[in-house]
Amino acid sequence: MYTIDELQKILNAELQKRSSELDTQKPAGLYSPIRYSLDAGGKRLRPVLLLMAYNLFHEDIESALPAALAIEVFHNFTLLHDDIMDKSEVRRNSPTVHVKYGENSAILSGDAMAFLSYRYLMEENSLRMSDVLELFTQTALEVCEGQQFDMEYESREIVSEAEYLEMIRLKTAVLLGCSLKCGALLANSTYKIANHLYDLGINLGLAFQIQDDWLDAFGESEYFGKRIGGDIIAGKQSYPLVKAIELADDQTKQQLRKVLADEKLPAGKKIESVLEIYNQLEIKDLAFEKIQTLFLNAENILQQIDLAEPRKSKFYELMVQMQKRSH
Amino acid sequence: MYTIDELQKILNAELQKRSSELDTQKPAGLYSPIRYSLDAGGKRLRPVLLLMAYNLFHEDIESALPAALAIEVFHNFTLLHDDIMDKSEVRRNSPTVHVKYGENSAILSGDAMAFLSYRYLMEENSLRMSDVLELFTQTALEVCEGQQFDMEYESREIVSEAEYLEMIRLKTAVLLGCSLKCGALLANSTYKIANHLYDLGINLGLAFQIQDDWLDAFGESEYFGKRIGGDIIAGKQSYPLVKAIELADDQTKQQLRKVLADEKLPAGKKIESVLEIYNQLEIKDLAFEKIQTLFLNAENILQQIDLAEPRKSKFYELMVQMQKRSH
Repeated sequence: MYTIDELQKILNAELQKRSSELDTQKPAGLYSPIRYSLDAGGKRLRPVLLLMAYNLFHEDIESALPAALAIEVFHNFTLLHDDIMDKSEVRRNSPTVHVKYGENSAILSGDAMAFLSYRYLMEENSLRMSDVLELFTQTALEVCEGQQFDMEYESREIVSEAEYLEMIRLKTAVLLGCSLKCGALLANSTYKIANHLYDLGINLGLAFQIQDDWLDAFGESEYFGKRIGGDIIAGKQSYPLVKAIELADDQTKQQLRKVLADEKLPAGKKIESVLEIYNQLEIKDLAFEKIQTLFLNAENILQQIDLAEPRKSKFYELMVQMQKRSH
Repeated sequence: MYTIDELQKILNAELQKRSSELDTQKPAGLYSPIRYSLDAGGKRLRPVLLLMAYNLFHEDIESALPAALAIEVFHNFTLLHDDIMDKSEVRRNSPTVHVKYGENSAILSGDAMAFLSYRYLMEENSLRMSDVLELFTQTALEVCEGQQFDMEYESREIVSEAEYLEMIRLKTAVLLGCSLKCGALLANSTYKIANHLYDLGINLGLAFQIQDDWLDAFGESEYFGKRIGGDIIAGKQSYPLVKAIELADDQTKQQLRKVLADEKLPAGKKIESVLEIYNQLEIKDLAFEKIQTLFLNAENILQQIDLAEPRKSKFYELMVQMQKRSH
């Protein structure tokens, strides 16, 4: 079995090879933005999850590489289009695709990436290919649904915790579940194990997103790599905000809304005021507990998976790595 | 065997049923624009071609309906995104999706349609499903490539006839070829016949697009349903323009470019001046001959298809219908 580091290295080598192949394809105006997007780096969490799941059953992961690539290309496709919709100008310290190449390119090259992900997914034959394709298609539709909810919730005053969790399940968690389940299906695992891995991915995905929200509000910017309070300034829903609105008394709720809607308030002051309210309501601890609960769920699911414990150790290791992000 | 009219009716009934199913899906903000786009009508040429090809081999077309739907949903996805890129505000006499629902909706609902087309395509089992999916994916990528060339050529002064034909092959013709070949593959035809049908679709697609260009320059607006000269005003490449630039002497070429680039020239005057040059160069007849040649190619391919002539009669009929568009 490979270590997580080894899987990351194998995957990055494959990505580099494939992305340089794209460079020879015409029209360059379509394929260059794709290469730019794939070369920008990132955690590669989703394809690594796919390879980890596959590697639970097979030592040789070669034939799972195209599917891992497919997941990463799909994920990057969503980033291209989301960045247009959210008017984000910077990603991973570089200009976003629509800033660098123009919006039309980001739309069209994004589209091409969606189809490219199907091409990669179908590259290797597998007994379970139709299961994999159905899962992938279902997941892709859910990710679109999640992004739609996310956009709609931006202008909503009250989003319940349940609504918020369902939104991030669709927007973020299902792709982690899909990655793990695809890896298992491609390795011809039982459906029972494949479904457990899917649930594991859902819990990791929810934890991951709430952790992102937590770090955005309470993290230290030198670790997190972006400025604290981005969600507050962008007027985005987040787990801390959803909980604060749920727990605040009427007066505090009014105050919170007023601060968030105040366009003249300087950014620093706005963040400070919101964090003060979060503080009163002990949101930092509450959100942290939620993250811990989700990691615990993931651990429980992992224990239920009918494989020898040593084979699963890498997953525990990954969870420890992920949990460290919050400190 | 069904008549073309009957196939159209069956297809429209299925589309209506499916599009009303979409209405119950959440979030409505994602699915309403899809329904709006599917309900807007159109010729439904591509799904009808798929059904015609399937109907060559099977009397009962029921199980080809989801794939026909997939092709139409995919085609409409390209319209949603192309209309953003081309800043088109009206389609089929109604506001385009990005005008009615906003650009973000047109991007995201378009994305969902791309995935929805895969879902429909996989709905029925078929022995040749992996062939169908590979063809569809290849076609989708080619359509993106064609759109990219189209956008790039708008700012190019010289586009050769060969480049132009390749662009419209990718942007338009391959989807007609794909529709016919999918129909044949789903009906479990031989690869030989499926490939002939693909080539037939390519020739019909090229003829169809050049006819569109011809009608835009030389048609009578009451038949065509849109104003003459739209391509000239929009600065789009078209078969007449490509031929005119190819055939004109240096002086006429200069003049043509000057007129096209002159932003102060009133639309009516600009169209008149360009048509005058087309007239001098006998572009109307030349383009018409090209269309006839492509229909003749299509007819030759049809004759080579190893099926009894009466079974193929509907295709001859369709070609006659298509040819009538130019008069």
